Amino acid sequence: MKLLTYNTKDTEPRLGFLHNNQVIDMEDFGEISNFPLPSDMLDLIDMGIEIIAELNEMVADTPEDYFKEIAYTLEEVTLLAPIQRPRKNIIGIGLNYTEHVAESARTLDTTGKLPQKPIIFSKPPTTVTGTNTEIVKNTKLTSQLDWEVELAVVIGKHGKYVPKAEALDYVFGYTVINDISARDCRREGQWIVSKGQDTFAPMGPILVTKDEIENPHNLNLSLKVNGIEKQNSNTKFMLFNINDLIEDLSTVFTLEPGDIIATGTPAGVGAGRDPQEWLYDGDVVEATVEGIGTIVNTVKEISK
Amino acid sequence: MKLLTYNTKDTEPRLGFLHNNQVIDMEDFGEISNFPLPSDMLDLIDMGIEIIAELNEMVADTPEDYFKEIAYTLEEVTLLAPIQRPRKNIIGIGLNYTEHVAESARTLDTTGKLPQKPIIFSKPPTTVTGTNTEIVKNTKLTSQLDWEVELAVVIGKHGKYVPKAEALDYVFGYTVINDISARDCRREGQWIVSKGQDTFAPMGPILVTKDEIENPHNLNLSLKVNGIEKQNSNTKFMLFNINDLIEDLSTVFTLEPGDIIATGTPAGVGAGRDPQEWLYDGDVVEATVEGIGTIVNTVKEISK
Repeated sequence: MKLLTYNTKDTEPRLGFLHNNQVIDMEDFGEISNFPLPSDMLDLIDMGIEIIAELNEMVADTPEDYFKEIAYTLEEVTLLAPIQRPRKNIIGIGLNYTEHVAESARTLDTTGKLPQKPIIFSKPPTTVTGTNTEIVKNTKLTSQLDWEVELAVVIGKHGKYVPKAEALDYVFGYTVINDISARDCRREGQWIVSKGQDTFAPMGPILVTKDEIENPHNLNLSLKVNGIEKQNSNTKFMLFNINDLIEDLSTVFTLEPGDIIATGTPAGVGAGRDPQEWLYDGDVVEATVEGIGTIVNTVKEISK
Repeated sequence: MKLLTYNTKDTEPRLGFLHNNQVIDMEDFGEISNFPLPSDMLDLIDMGIEIIAELNEMVADTPEDYFKEIAYTLEEVTLLAPIQRPRKNIIGIGLNYTEHVAESARTLDTTGKLPQKPIIFSKPPTTVTGTNTEIVKNTKLTSQLDWEVELAVVIGKHGKYVPKAEALDYVFGYTVINDISARDCRREGQWIVSKGQDTFAPMGPILVTKDEIENPHNLNLSLKVNGIEKQNSNTKFMLFNINDLIEDLSTVFTLEPGDIIATGTPAGVGAGRDPQEWLYDGDVVEATVEGIGTIVNTVKEISK
């Protein structure tokens, strides 16, 4: 299922899904199906991962005419971040692609050793923004704004001490995150100021449920700045794959429905280039993961 | 006002306050006052900082007899963490007392330089626990479990780019946090695994609204392990005071009602002692801040 959060000029953010390239409101679909469905993504995730199979069946059983009444074209809506407000900070994974470990050690303050365990950081809920929005660069805080395309995993049920082999049972679906990083905002090595500023987690454009992703460990991911490709890799090159990450993270934190894991970025970030490249006012960044889509954001400089 | 979250054997967590050393349920108090009041701390904070003055007046205007009907003794209730579920990760401040900067550099991987800006990390909502609960030490993850008594500031309203001089207008109140830290769980210098494990943020025992704290920059804070004092200092020794922290943090994140800032710990942590000291199964840790109270927790070792 291709889930999304959207609004129109008349509505608050609402949950929907794509059907024949049109947007169907989830609550409206529930009404025509006599099956109460929520208007918020987290409420849907709270219904349990099993709801997806039921919804797929319901959609298949619904005559096409019924959809026409409640469908929006994509032009009629604004897509928003699929999860507007994660319940804990987004869980970020650092240095999870070999070549990115190398490029980071050349130019940043990391050691260059391959991590023995996942490197974890966080991005507050206030970092979340959608596609077609601005990434706000405060020039008083940073002159080194950088990009990082990542596959993001959305958790579907509570998990503590999850064995690797069962880890994908805990996944609800996938989305794209651009893990925007102000490289010069590290403080005593901590990354949260670098990665945690408002608008530093563009997310979307949709959330694809796991039944539609045949193999999350074989997805191309790429990123362009002003139309020029800067990153291009595949999730098969992750050092710690999604199973590893869920096993490890769940020994630390209780994973909860709606938690988001940004699984790390491949090589090609601005900090790793020679000469280094940074984002400036008006730059357009496009982050793509195969099977999910592309998020497009424009950099907006402010000085505060 | 001395606010708290409590339950009895018959109830879910509920909001209350101390009156003449008895616990008054906030929703019940609203009923006898014909003024609807919430049963959850975050809902109260969302009513705005001004609600506190109103509540103080309402309490003063209520005949003592009325309270008798709805009062619990402290023995009849269990005190829980005042905020059960922060909306973003707890915002932690590292290295915010001079002598703690020095002891950390001697024994941990920090540089020993006085920070030029606050060092920020985070603790997920899943770290929160109350007083009289267990701190869970997973011996497969850590053999270096440590204590850190801290004054915690609870934010009362949305703030972005808050000037230092106005910062205290954004404070709702204060509580105590023991910023439990597994020193050997740092990964590529990141602190979230060290500080972010479930139960690593004992909080409480109550939340004191700011009108009852004459000067938050002159509060003794101390910590005992098995009755022996390990930390003893005063909030006046913070490197970055609360005004500084709110100004700085609000340039990074939008501060939101209910956000919690753990303002850093003074010298005397286990890692800084010679020889180093760590927490083991059964150890009892008492963290105290003047004017707020003491949280008491027992270490429970598991191996998972």
